Amino acid sequence: MDTATLKKLLDDVAAGAIAPDAAADRLKSLPYEDLGFAKLDHHRQLRKGMPETIFASGKTHEQVIEIIARMREHGSNVLATRCEPEMAEAVKKAHPDITHHEVARCLTLTIAPPEQLKGYVAVVCAGTSDLPVAEEAAVTCESLGNRVERIVDVGVAGLHRLLGERDRLGEATAIIVCAGMEGALPTAVAGLVDRPVIAVPTSVGYGASFGGIAALLGMLNSCASGVTVVNIDNGFGAGYAAARINAGAGKSDS
Amino acid sequence: MDTATLKKLLDDVAAGAIAPDAAADRLKSLPYEDLGFAKLDHHRQLRKGMPETIFASGKTHEQVIEIIARMREHGSNVLATRCEPEMAEAVKKAHPDITHHEVARCLTLTIAPPEQLKGYVAVVCAGTSDLPVAEEAAVTCESLGNRVERIVDVGVAGLHRLLGERDRLGEATAIIVCAGMEGALPTAVAGLVDRPVIAVPTSVGYGASFGGIAALLGMLNSCASGVTVVNIDNGFGAGYAAARINAGAGKSDS
Amino acid sequence: MDTATLKKLLDDVAAGAIAPDAAADRLKSLPYEDLGFAKLDHHRQLRKGMPETIFASGKTHEQVIEIIARMREHGSNVLATRCEPEMAEAVKKAHPDITHHEVARCLTLTIAPPEQLKGYVAVVCAGTSDLPVAEEAAVTCESLGNRVERIVDVGVAGLHRLLGERDRLGEATAIIVCAGMEGALPTAVAGLVDRPVIAVPTSVGYGASFGGIAALLGMLNSCASGVTVVNIDNGFGAGYAAARINAGAGKSDS
Amino acid sequence: MDTATLKKLLDDVAAGAIAPDAAADRLKSLPYEDLGFAKLDHHRQLRKGMPETIFASGKTHEQVIEIIARMREHGSNVLATRCEPEMAEAVKKAHPDITHHEVARCLTLTIAPPEQLKGYVAVVCAGTSDLPVAEEAAVTCESLGNRVERIVDVGVAGLHRLLGERDRLGEATAIIVCAGMEGALPTAVAGLVDRPVIAVPTSVGYGASFGGIAALLGMLNSCASGVTVVNIDNGFGAGYAAARINAGAGKSDS
Amino acid sequence: MDTATLKKLLDDVAAGAIAPDAAADRLKSLPYEDLGFAKLDHHRQLRKGMPETIFASGKTHEQVIEIIARMREHGSNVLATRCEPEMAEAVKKAHPDITHHEVARCLTLTIAPPEQLKGYVAVVCAGTSDLPVAEEAAVTCESLGNRVERIVDVGVAGLHRLLGERDRLGEATAIIVCAGMEGALPTAVAGLVDRPVIAVPTSVGYGASFGGIAALLGMLNSCASGVTVVNIDNGFGAGYAAARINAGAGKSDS
Amino acid sequence: MDTATLKKLLDDVAAGAIAPDAAADRLKSLPYEDLGFAKLDHHRQLRKGMPETIFASGKTHEQVIEIIARMREHGSNVLATRCEPEMAEAVKKAHPDITHHEVARCLTLTIAPPEQLKGYVAVVCAGTSDLPVAEEAAVTCESLGNRVERIVDVGVAGLHRLLGERDRLGEATAIIVCAGMEGALPTAVAGLVDRPVIAVPTSVGYGASFGGIAALLGMLNSCASGVTVVNIDNGFGAGYAAARINAGAGKSDS
Amino acid sequence: MDTATLKKLLDDVAAGAIAPDAAADRLKSLPYEDLGFAKLDHHRQLRKGMPETIFASGKTHEQVIEIIARMREHGSNVLATRCEPEMAEAVKKAHPDITHHEVARCLTLTIAPPEQLKGYVAVVCAGTSDLPVAEEAAVTCESLGNRVERIVDVGVAGLHRLLGERDRLGEATAIIVCAGMEGALPTAVAGLVDRPVIAVPTSVGYGASFGGIAALLGMLNSCASGVTVVNIDNGFGAGYAAARINAGAGKSDS
Amino acid sequence: MDTATLKKLLDDVAAGAIAPDAAADRLKSLPYEDLGFAKLDHHRQLRKGMPETIFASGKTHEQVIEIIARMREHGSNVLATRCEPEMAEAVKKAHPDITHHEVARCLTLTIAPPEQLKGYVAVVCAGTSDLPVAEEAAVTCESLGNRVERIVDVGVAGLHRLLGERDRLGEATAIIVCAGMEGALPTAVAGLVDRPVIAVPTSVGYGASFGGIAALLGMLNSCASGVTVVNIDNGFGAGYAAARINAGAGKSDS
Repeated sequence: MDTATLKKLLDDVAAGAIAPDAAADRLKSLPYEDLGFAKLDHHRQLRKGMPETIFASGKTHEQVIEIIARMREHGSNVLATRCEPEMAEAVKKAHPDITHHEVARCLTLTIAPPEQLKGYVAVVCAGTSDLPVAEEAAVTCESLGNRVERIVDVGVAGLHRLLGERDRLGEATAIIVCAGMEGALPTAVAGLVDRPVIAVPTSVGYGASFGGIAALLGMLNSCASGVTVVNIDNGFGAGYAAARINAGAGKSDS
Repeated sequence: MDTATLKKLLDDVAAGAIAPDAAADRLKSLPYEDLGFAKLDHHRQLRKGMPETIFASGKTHEQVIEIIARMREHGSNVLATRCEPEMAEAVKKAHPDITHHEVARCLTLTIAPPEQLKGYVAVVCAGTSDLPVAEEAAVTCESLGNRVERIVDVGVAGLHRLLGERDRLGEATAIIVCAGMEGALPTAVAGLVDRPVIAVPTSVGYGASFGGIAALLGMLNSCASGVTVVNIDNGFGAGYAAARINAGAGKSDS
Repeated sequence: MDTATLKKLLDDVAAGAIAPDAAADRLKSLPYEDLGFAKLDHHRQLRKGMPETIFASGKTHEQVIEIIARMREHGSNVLATRCEPEMAEAVKKAHPDITHHEVARCLTLTIAPPEQLKGYVAVVCAGTSDLPVAEEAAVTCESLGNRVERIVDVGVAGLHRLLGERDRLGEATAIIVCAGMEGALPTAVAGLVDRPVIAVPTSVGYGASFGGIAALLGMLNSCASGVTVVNIDNGFGAGYAAARINAGAGKSDS
Repeated sequence: MDTATLKKLLDDVAAGAIAPDAAADRLKSLPYEDLGFAKLDHHRQLRKGMPETIFASGKTHEQVIEIIARMREHGSNVLATRCEPEMAEAVKKAHPDITHHEVARCLTLTIAPPEQLKGYVAVVCAGTSDLPVAEEAAVTCESLGNRVERIVDVGVAGLHRLLGERDRLGEATAIIVCAGMEGALPTAVAGLVDRPVIAVPTSVGYGASFGGIAALLGMLNSCASGVTVVNIDNGFGAGYAAARINAGAGKSDS
Repeated sequence: MDTATLKKLLDDVAAGAIAPDAAADRLKSLPYEDLGFAKLDHHRQLRKGMPETIFASGKTHEQVIEIIARMREHGSNVLATRCEPEMAEAVKKAHPDITHHEVARCLTLTIAPPEQLKGYVAVVCAGTSDLPVAEEAAVTCESLGNRVERIVDVGVAGLHRLLGERDRLGEATAIIVCAGMEGALPTAVAGLVDRPVIAVPTSVGYGASFGGIAALLGMLNSCASGVTVVNIDNGFGAGYAAARINAGAGKSDS
Repeated sequence: MDTATLKKLLDDVAAGAIAPDAAADRLKSLPYEDLGFAKLDHHRQLRKGMPETIFASGKTHEQVIEIIARMREHGSNVLATRCEPEMAEAVKKAHPDITHHEVARCLTLTIAPPEQLKGYVAVVCAGTSDLPVAEEAAVTCESLGNRVERIVDVGVAGLHRLLGERDRLGEATAIIVCAGMEGALPTAVAGLVDRPVIAVPTSVGYGASFGGIAALLGMLNSCASGVTVVNIDNGFGAGYAAARINAGAGKSDS
Repeated sequence: MDTATLKKLLDDVAAGAIAPDAAADRLKSLPYEDLGFAKLDHHRQLRKGMPETIFASGKTHEQVIEIIARMREHGSNVLATRCEPEMAEAVKKAHPDITHHEVARCLTLTIAPPEQLKGYVAVVCAGTSDLPVAEEAAVTCESLGNRVERIVDVGVAGLHRLLGERDRLGEATAIIVCAGMEGALPTAVAGLVDRPVIAVPTSVGYGASFGGIAALLGMLNSCASGVTVVNIDNGFGAGYAAARINAGAGKSDS
Repeated sequence: MDTATLKKLLDDVAAGAIAPDAAADRLKSLPYEDLGFAKLDHHRQLRKGMPETIFASGKTHEQVIEIIARMREHGSNVLATRCEPEMAEAVKKAHPDITHHEVARCLTLTIAPPEQLKGYVAVVCAGTSDLPVAEEAAVTCESLGNRVERIVDVGVAGLHRLLGERDRLGEATAIIVCAGMEGALPTAVAGLVDRPVIAVPTSVGYGASFGGIAALLGMLNSCASGVTVVNIDNGFGAGYAAARINAGAGKSDS
């Protein structure tokens, strides 16, 4: 309900087309949806073409199945993250047309394909252990209409291969870098190309990695400017933020 | 030294225009500057129109004065952050044409004005205590050629005022939100408008705020998607990251 | 044993109705129960109508069954928290008339119904993952004679729905708000209505939520006044504290 | 703007008494102040008789003086916390009629005396080192219209004196208990009397007290039910929460 | 090899009864056992009547069985702590005469009964969850020749019962107090009687108890003098330290 | 008020020698002093010959001077710890007969000399930086009637000197060991002699010593049995605990 | 590609023996391998005779099997660490000639035996629980061509045995010391002999050992100079570092 | 007292040249100095040519002056670290021939020049803020007879300059790398050249660098093998460890 709609409602009241009581009721309930608060509701009522997101961890199979059913009724796309194999299997039984991204531990269901953006997001990770987080980021980006370039065989311990990817990195609108242990890879990438870098610390490591804290702190203290950070293992958050950046880049030339 | 330049050098060697030894010397030293590594050197040799940055805290007055002098010789713009009043005074004596941003605790010297970008960055903070961090972010953005909209009188404890700023927020290419204590403001902003939000936890608070840790954790765990985080009090880093995002938006339509 | 009872005992001694030795024995043992210390014994010997509480986690099935049996003998109501399904099943076999609150993970047995209080407690939570903690709080309140209004479909990411609950919130004597991740919901509630808010951080989240620490710190640093906090996942403690507040409100008008 | 007012506005529009455009303007700006958000603005626009609160720490003398001047213009009472002696002196020069509570480190200015509540708040602390926090709580309560009973010479290491205060504790509507070191006093109080206890960990201690963390954790893990906790040294927050509880008790019998 | 033995050796050399070379060899190897270093070897070669101690956690069944066999050969008593039921069962098969203390999770084998000391150690704990730690302490004391008085039905939440145990506490040579959650019980005991109190934080609790850290910090910050602390759940260490104190008391009157 | 006294009071009531009302009053107030709680009051009403203790840090000069004056009136010995030089000077002006222990940062005033105990306490520290903590422990012991043997020139980095002190260590009733950095000295001492060892971590160190946390953790995890630990820099607490142990040893042979 | 090779390439271009385009291609791809970056790739392309290392934890059986197959193709030796028994079994089925080091949890495959170094590395640990980490270090050293002396039956609690190993320790080129709990053993070793000591904190312990943090901090704060530290349980890292030291010693006399 | 000396003593006893009692006395005191324990005494009685080390922080001017005087008497070289300017000035007044290394905050006094080793140690740091720590390491190395190559103008943000130093790095016997913030530089160096790398985290940084913890964790989790770590800001420890490594390299070819 933008200002125009609001004025229209009041015009209708002025014109007698709508009774004051009915308008009062409508104003009482609608503003929260239309005057800006609906945007706070990003997880469930995002605008068309964008999937609703379900954080499946900690939910029962039944709960996830029911949420998806309700979303399907509303014509909403679905992205469910952190789905362990047993949950994926259970959900697929109830919703056979859903897609299971095994490495990403995600389920997606596309009813209305999202608008495709012009730019792309590069998703970088060093090794096999970081792959689930990187794939969660990639699948999130794709479900929001972004093209993704995956760069999965690099790392500070193989910097020459990273250098070989300079072109793909340099032309991305945003770069997501997933790394565990000491978390130095985002610094290397941010030094290499002049693009926004979203660093995702992963819980890969042991001992004094403290489940990703070492990587998190390393990334927060990166001596390379332009690096921002999300929660440990939060591939979804990184993907969503990159999608926002890419949408901005896409919007400005259309 | 892009591929073209490299091929040109080798053509020159092939053509005898440059001696193999001279070419070897040049290849030995240049690649690190030209083939990509120069971009790692973002703090000191950024490309034209972008200021070099000096993190003044922990340096002596003499060191800062000398670094600025050297940068001036190379025609580089200057941005010095974390300059306490005494340092600013000392530097101004040596470099009278430098600008002192008191609240931001920054010094800037513009020799070659940076290219102005089309979009703008919104810098948001709640109260007077967060202002130094917000201003550091704003001055950083401006020194990199970005227009800045400052929104300084909002906060979760005055959400209606934030709502009144929806338009200015919604049209920004990137939004920087500085908050201390519980750090909930970035979540509110990210829920309100669909733009990339860079959250800056500040060390404002006491007791269990632990010098900004509570705000940092709050931001990392934001339930609003699209929020990324930088180090506590790191206005510069947020400004730099926002500038990269804005540059991407600007570039795509030129 | 209030002052009156004490004086009566001594009068009896003075009157010869009770021998000094017998009085000495009685005074030696009773004071700890009657002169004030018994109130420290809130977990096991609370006064009539209030249930004794059993923290079942870490106890064996046998221990819990036996404690309940002993309480039943004394005519005490029972509230057992943190009962995993297997324990609930085992206890129900021994005490078939006990009620199992599955989501709350609680068992209750009401022998003497508690006095019903006039006001009510609002129990608020955002999502399905916080429900067990919220239900533990609600069942605790109810077992202590409080009416409970459950508001379970709100959250900072759906603030408009929270706004729709303003009336139910504003008329509560006390409000319990359960939230994980960044823990910002209590701040929103405390800003919305002028009632005492008891915040319960939940261990819902991952990575830098550190099992509820991020939510706990966020709540302790809430920029909304009037928020107090209990231990992570401590629905029982929040319920008990709310019951004390509600009892105070109820008492003053009777 | 409650529902009645809203309907009145719309009636006026329907009756032609107010033009649709004017009503749109008014609806656009007012709701955030009147439909609930104003309550989020508790620090600055609390309703009549309640002081606005200034957290002075981290603000300059000039800023505090100016804020007070602005509040005075609006007829608002003033409560400024965390005022070091120099600030108090500077503010008193500009506002000679302001009251300086030295131990509490507070400044208060009463323009419209707040409505006095029937119950009272007990503020308890063990020793001289905890007094500033306890007094901040007490002054906060008083500035909000609550009577305060101060119980300052007790402690776990002098429990008999605490026992001597059972009556004053037992008749309070809410009890604030300030303690440093191991923070066991709130547990003792909560065991002694059946009232809501708000525990304030103080930063008093050394070594493994970690600036109040030990006390904070002790209070969060209190084995006495009915204890809720605020931030370390947060006397203001405890006072404000107690005032809300006392207001609830007062309201129900009027 | 005390000074007398050393002098004897040298006398023998002087007398020619032992060759200088042989004496050199003997001095080279023995001092580490006899001149003081053997006492560092407290876990394995304690003096007669005192059991060797095996920390079974992290060892295989085979390793524990073999260590016990070797100790039996040397006529050493055995105390094995942290034996899970499966290990106890396996060890009993190999050493059928060993005693399994189920609650304490200990195994003991007495070959030469330790000398009985005059005083006794009081072992106090609040609830059933702390029992395994308390029993580990008690069994350790007993295996070292100390009489133990168990006081297991007290707690800060039942202080009157603790008061009823004042005599048994006050006559103990040393008191071990096991408590989880906030860990306030040792303070109460140390305030009640003037005996050395060894506090054992237990990992009983949840949320912000952080596996015993809250109790540990509470005990380290105890406002009651005379409290010393051991590691979380370290019943053995507390028992051993109490045994040393009791031995000192016993020794001085014999 | 032991059982005999209690019976006597009741006999007096029965005999009419004391009125029931008067007895009720007396019973109401006295038990807290006589039935056990007075012992909780160890800081201020310890029994004759034992000094009252003042933790001076965080108190004003005036407060300390006044507390001492009040204690002097009651004939109580005085021990004030953590007195910075300025405070000591100020207190000496008001109480010229008080003794200032400079290194220990303590003030003592002996009105009734404490009963001297038979055994002695060994106070061990490695270097000059740990001396203030060690001296606080030693002065505390002495003020409670214990003889102290100071062993100040040892350390893990000079173990041979420690070995030279084996006799003095081995005959002590209790040993206090103060160490910073890694805190390994108590383990060495506890391995050397079979006496109770109270370990005091000091805040000596830098970097990852975290103000004494490394030493604290090292001591809590000591692989030498018989070590108990007090708070960082808590010389007083260690001294008090050692005095309790020594009193126990002394008592048993008299 | 050292400077000579580079000049040779350019000479070839100058001489027409290689076309400029071909040289450009070669320079574009090769430098990252030959001009220094290849050395960053230490985990996978170390020079001949040195095994590639696989950190197996967090990888699937299939991934490890395939990596080994690929390494075998390239003639590379293999060292896989952190292989649980099931993985070892699975890998052995696919690569029957691989050696499984059970205690060390390592797999090794030697295709080209590494050059044997002159000196040796001493690997020290106290007890059975630290053995897996010590063996990981030892197997790493051996796989890199180092002779290893294992000293596994020592510890601070058996210092005399450590003393008996002084010769073996004193002649080692580097010493690796693995210890859990308080982590004091490296200090003792570094005090005993004048060799470089690499300390490996192990996660052995409980309670306030915090999974190895206590040992880590103890080692970082060692009062014995010459101690350096690696991550908790990082036997591989210690072995690799010792191998570098030993290689340096070996190189200097050849 | 090596074996020869010991045999000589016993021969003397056998020959009657020394009385058994005198020999016993001598054996009782001497072994701790001569039989191996003297090496534990590394801080004070290192062998000839190696300076004794004084950690000046936390000592008074007088203490440091006196220790130096005593060392001078024994002909010992002196290295005092952590000397603030005022201390250096005071010490120079008492010992005018002492050398003050201002940046390193060290004082050195060479009485007997240490034996010069063949290899050299490279000391690397990124920026001006890390210089004091790097210089402390360098001065320590030099005072122990090591040649030092200082590489102070490199950093991850200027990697090409680091690459330019490959030769100097690759020929060092050991490399010390000092870095604050994220601490990624040691990883880069360890990837570049195959030498032992000792990483020194510095307290340079702010916010989530937590006084060097981020750098410390980053280094402990380095994905480059061969990196070992010392305490935050511990330049001395790194220098000492590097000297041990270099001594080993030097020894093997002489």
